[in-house]
Amino acid sequence: MYGAIEAGGTKFICAMGTGPHDLETIEIPTTTTVATIDAVIDFFRPRLSELAAVGIASFGPIDLNPDSWTYGYITSTPKDGWRNFDIAGAVRKSLDLPVGFDTDVNGAALGEARWGAARGLSDFVYLTVGTGIGGGAIVNGRLLHGLVHPEMGHIRVPHDRGRDPFDGICPFHGDCLEGLASGPAIEKRWGVRAPDLDPAHPGIALEAEYLALGLANWVCTLSPQRIVLGGGVMKHAILFPMIRRRLLDLLHDYVQAREITECIDQYVVPALLGGRAGVLGGLALAEEAAGVSV
Amino acid sequence: MYGAIEAGGTKFICAMGTGPHDLETIEIPTTTTVATIDAVIDFFRPRLSELAAVGIASFGPIDLNPDSWTYGYITSTPKDGWRNFDIAGAVRKSLDLPVGFDTDVNGAALGEARWGAARGLSDFVYLTVGTGIGGGAIVNGRLLHGLVHPEMGHIRVPHDRGRDPFDGICPFHGDCLEGLASGPAIEKRWGVRAPDLDPAHPGIALEAEYLALGLANWVCTLSPQRIVLGGGVMKHAILFPMIRRRLLDLLHDYVQAREITECIDQYVVPALLGGRAGVLGGLALAEEAAGVSV
Repeated sequence: MYGAIEAGGTKFICAMGTGPHDLETIEIPTTTTVATIDAVIDFFRPRLSELAAVGIASFGPIDLNPDSWTYGYITSTPKDGWRNFDIAGAVRKSLDLPVGFDTDVNGAALGEARWGAARGLSDFVYLTVGTGIGGGAIVNGRLLHGLVHPEMGHIRVPHDRGRDPFDGICPFHGDCLEGLASGPAIEKRWGVRAPDLDPAHPGIALEAEYLALGLANWVCTLSPQRIVLGGGVMKHAILFPMIRRRLLDLLHDYVQAREITECIDQYVVPALLGGRAGVLGGLALAEEAAGVSV
Repeated sequence: MYGAIEAGGTKFICAMGTGPHDLETIEIPTTTTVATIDAVIDFFRPRLSELAAVGIASFGPIDLNPDSWTYGYITSTPKDGWRNFDIAGAVRKSLDLPVGFDTDVNGAALGEARWGAARGLSDFVYLTVGTGIGGGAIVNGRLLHGLVHPEMGHIRVPHDRGRDPFDGICPFHGDCLEGLASGPAIEKRWGVRAPDLDPAHPGIALEAEYLALGLANWVCTLSPQRIVLGGGVMKHAILFPMIRRRLLDLLHDYVQAREITECIDQYVVPALLGGRAGVLGGLALAEEAAGVSV
């Protein structure tokens, strides 16, 4: 059995189990570091002897470089009291177990690989479109980290100001993909909360356009076997056929792979783990930490 | 000792040796498949017993899927007579040696990792900007292939038609990065061959802008430890400081890594293997085929 922690800025979700069907879960509000971690430890302690490892899928930014002395830290978060906090170290020292540690989006990608929409794939992209836009990639069967970790939401895509004069809301980049197509960007542009947008509203087609542009760039860069889309904005199911059609237009038969040209419905698919992506990601990270090959 | 083949549309370069300092090389014009491969075999045969493996860095598109019955084939090339030709099979059957096989750009990336500007790195991007724009990525120490292989030159980037009304020349995508920033795009837009562009010509700043946009997207997607730029267009050395400065602007301190924010001169660097990238890539592929860890 494994322990899982989805560490979020407003709540922690902790779970014990072996997979989606036997998870015992609690929610802990995110307060101070000490009180929050104490509550996490209290949850796991009664069954500590049954746990092989714990995985943490954490909000960020975090340090994932194993050679860094701040590996396992939450680093430059604006969240009060959590800046430069050794979250992985705190859990490891309290529970004396192997600890897996990664970003929430990488955890979710791993969860989709293990139990969700990317089972059996060695190379795919997982994208969440909600409050922000975040992406995780599995390449050759392993999470892509690189120098830091991807920040896929912040790629630049063509922005036709004739069609969409909106400046974008990213405080760093203005009209990067996240600045144009995250939930808050939709709300700011149209004055309607993203979930409340009518399927016939022109904002839906515009959203599909931007996401398809992002997907086309990731197809050209990462050559994924599949792209899995999750997050609140993707609850607009009508986005899927629109994104698929526009992605095919954009690629224009250049990438010769039947998985794309003939099977686009299986190529761009919804995430399956939904609200449990983070905590199941933590569970997948725990499996990895225990040496189980995912 | 290893054998290397850089298979190009106009010439094949073959070499034997162990690295950049002891390569014995010949050039063979690319004619028919049979005549070309016969000449390749004739080159290697006298010293066949000394070779541990042969590597082929090939023009494409090629089939790199080991589970496909057309693995090792050049597939849908317009080049007369070479379509659906089992180039890796032909070499393997003639020489009875392990054969490494990959795209020319992936080979060059591997060569830069082994002997060039990316030594010791587990995660980097190699980009060649010339007749086309092609990119290879190493992730977690291994070449990224995914479903097919990357086509990085074909990402879409913002195209400000006020500054640059040029439509782009990519026959598939119009104003994708390759359509806007390859050597032929420069020549078509300005009426000057790319190598002859004056360093003060506005085309240089525009080129730096597009390449920096591409690099920013790859930093956000692949989080490379370094980006290595080669190809004919990059012989304009003035592009490097312009690209570096603009890349920092575009990232706007969002990616917190000193390797980028404080060491940009070592982050975006020229390729070191130049015209020998392909054949040294073949050599690195041969090493891989022989089981040597690069």
